[in-house]
Amino acid sequence: MYGTWGVFLGGILLLQVLQLSMGLDNGLALKPPMGWMSWERFRCITDCKLYPDECISEKLFQRHADLLVSEGYADAGYEYVIIDDCWLEKNRDNDTQKLVPDRKRFPNGLNALSDHIHNQGLKFGLYQDYGTNTCAGYPGVIKHMKLDAQTFADWDVDYVKLDGCYANISDMASGYPEFGRLLNETGRPMVYSCSWPAYQEDAGEMPDYESLKQHCNLWRNWDDIEDSLESLMQIIDYFAKNQDRIQPHGGPGHWNDPDMLLLGNYGLSYDQSKLQMAIWAIMAAPLIMSNDLAAVRPEIKAILQNRAVIAVDQDELGIQGRRVLSRNQIEVWKRPITPVTKSGHHSYAVAFVSRRDDGAPYRIPFTVKELGLTNPKGYNVQDLYDASSKLGVFQSESQFITRVNPNGVTFYKFTAL
Amino acid sequence: MYGTWGVFLGGILLLQVLQLSMGLDNGLALKPPMGWMSWERFRCITDCKLYPDECISEKLFQRHADLLVSEGYADAGYEYVIIDDCWLEKNRDNDTQKLVPDRKRFPNGLNALSDHIHNQGLKFGLYQDYGTNTCAGYPGVIKHMKLDAQTFADWDVDYVKLDGCYANISDMASGYPEFGRLLNETGRPMVYSCSWPAYQEDAGEMPDYESLKQHCNLWRNWDDIEDSLESLMQIIDYFAKNQDRIQPHGGPGHWNDPDMLLLGNYGLSYDQSKLQMAIWAIMAAPLIMSNDLAAVRPEIKAILQNRAVIAVDQDELGIQGRRVLSRNQIEVWKRPITPVTKSGHHSYAVAFVSRRDDGAPYRIPFTVKELGLTNPKGYNVQDLYDASSKLGVFQSESQFITRVNPNGVTFYKFTAL
Repeated sequence: MYGTWGVFLGGILLLQVLQLSMGLDNGLALKPPMGWMSWERFRCITDCKLYPDECISEKLFQRHADLLVSEGYADAGYEYVIIDDCWLEKNRDNDTQKLVPDRKRFPNGLNALSDHIHNQGLKFGLYQDYGTNTCAGYPGVIKHMKLDAQTFADWDVDYVKLDGCYANISDMASGYPEFGRLLNETGRPMVYSCSWPAYQEDAGEMPDYESLKQHCNLWRNWDDIEDSLESLMQIIDYFAKNQDRIQPHGGPGHWNDPDMLLLGNYGLSYDQSKLQMAIWAIMAAPLIMSNDLAAVRPEIKAILQNRAVIAVDQDELGIQGRRVLSRNQIEVWKRPITPVTKSGHHSYAVAFVSRRDDGAPYRIPFTVKELGLTNPKGYNVQDLYDASSKLGVFQSESQFITRVNPNGVTFYKFTAL
Repeated sequence: MYGTWGVFLGGILLLQVLQLSMGLDNGLALKPPMGWMSWERFRCITDCKLYPDECISEKLFQRHADLLVSEGYADAGYEYVIIDDCWLEKNRDNDTQKLVPDRKRFPNGLNALSDHIHNQGLKFGLYQDYGTNTCAGYPGVIKHMKLDAQTFADWDVDYVKLDGCYANISDMASGYPEFGRLLNETGRPMVYSCSWPAYQEDAGEMPDYESLKQHCNLWRNWDDIEDSLESLMQIIDYFAKNQDRIQPHGGPGHWNDPDMLLLGNYGLSYDQSKLQMAIWAIMAAPLIMSNDLAAVRPEIKAILQNRAVIAVDQDELGIQGRRVLSRNQIEVWKRPITPVTKSGHHSYAVAFVSRRDDGAPYRIPFTVKELGLTNPKGYNVQDLYDASSKLGVFQSESQFITRVNPNGVTFYKFTAL
């Protein structure tokens, strides 16, 4: 009997451990989701006469599904095409109470759009809001959660972003898990992105990360990103300053989300674009673009599709990185990644971020040990933004010199030998 | 007798009026100087082994003189090649007390470099400092002003930038004019750029603009520019907030100088690059680049060489523009330019500057009258960043709609009919 019970209890424990470490029990988002979302670039543009290529409409999402494939983003791993706010009619269906997509801008309905996206080999994401209304004032889910979860499943949705406008923050700790449970009950696997902690943080409340990990695949920790270096740096600083309580909770199936990539828009220079991409990879962040993919310059596209940087972001260990050092306004960010040696030493992605703007690239030396890299056999070092680079082998006592452009980044992989 | 004295006195008055309106009596800089200077990008890099293409050396300035011509900048009007700080030996010549260029980095001396620059059809500029030392610690002019002025003339210098480190600010009001007088006494015409008011402003003193206009061809009003949008916007805001006391003093022969163009470096996006170029043109600012001309991307080069924008900057009236309006974080900047109608109505360059970063371009309507444009016959409007644009004729009561990218600019010429 003991033996049988032992196996049984062991099984329960294993399940619990798996549930804790794997996050929401839907088997999804074992790597940070990658894709494209409308909000940062296209906001709530609804005037399709004035802005036919920009308005929130089935055309916008069809066009971007097609561009994800034709421009090579899908091959690089970008997968989800996500409609953000402003896709709804202002009122639910009178008879069924179902959500209704805007009839003029989505004349063929969401199943047609969903099919278009799926036929491209991509996945379909959709925004809603936990409260009475979405942030832009369209109907929210709070009074129709079961119906809406089923409607999402009926539309073949693969990814749900649930915002938190027009809701009581105190209800979120029970309400967000409830909607997640209802999504799961539909039987359709849907990645579940929760905005819940961002609202708690803004209200000065501490999010319950154990609950988040149990109920959400990813969550927005803080403010929306805007199209400027200033906004980007505020977010980076937020994650760095609060990393002790945030970083441990990211992992396969449950990710911290610093918000969308700005690359391809108006506010970031080339060097600043490399910076966001590198730090998002260090943070194991979802890589969700929000740009006009037809207008992305080739050199920015190359950053977005950089396979070596994406591989860091998607590293199978799923350990989120941290800011570990700052000297002369050069910050060092570090993330443990594969391969791991037989003796248990990780490889590392290491980013050097300049907070300087004094014109010339800034040269700075570190010993490898100072970076916290202590593998006795040393590391083979590669520049992740220069595929051809072979910088050679560095030991723990070696000096590693980098030169970082103003408000730019250098980004290396230290492969443990 | 009366008639003769009248003509004589009239002549004196005319000379005085000319001197006041034309600035420093050297007949130079009747339009804002255009050129290239080393500081913002190359700072005080003196290690030519580590940085052979970047160190302050004759090679750097030869290379950029050549690039100004071969890359088309000279044809667009960029003329002065200006050495900033860090070109000197740490000590004057023991026997002659003359300034000595760094022997390793300028092995052929400044006359050879000056010849190289002149042979390219360009002009030669050189930095010094009014105090005991330059800002980087090399010997300043204060104890050898007559000798140094003559040395500059002997080196065939065409443009002098006189910084103000290691000097008593209270001495500047007499010292800067004195050095200008000594430059003039050499008989060689040299544009005279004074940093004097920037130091006074930092010390909370009000510059004497009448004296500046009399003694300097241009002057740095405020802080150095750094390679970031933040720095650029601080400078733009400084000039806007203080425009009542600054703007009237710019004009042919005597220009306010908001510092170098950042275009082609690391910190500005494409849209932000257009913004600086447009506002510098509105402000009748010197167009002094500081970048590696071999590394400037084609789309940025096109902004730097935009003939229509440069024509605004160089407009013969030399009237500095102003910020005239701000609505919904869209600022309107305006500069009166040629052609002027027979009835005395100016044409205008009008820039709309976005201080927004909320993702999508922002659409905003104004009546032409709101912009302060009241010519009864109206204006023919052209987009200065789109040579092919013909937006048509707008009357004072017409609505003019523009759409501005986040932290970007739209820039138009309203030609009075």
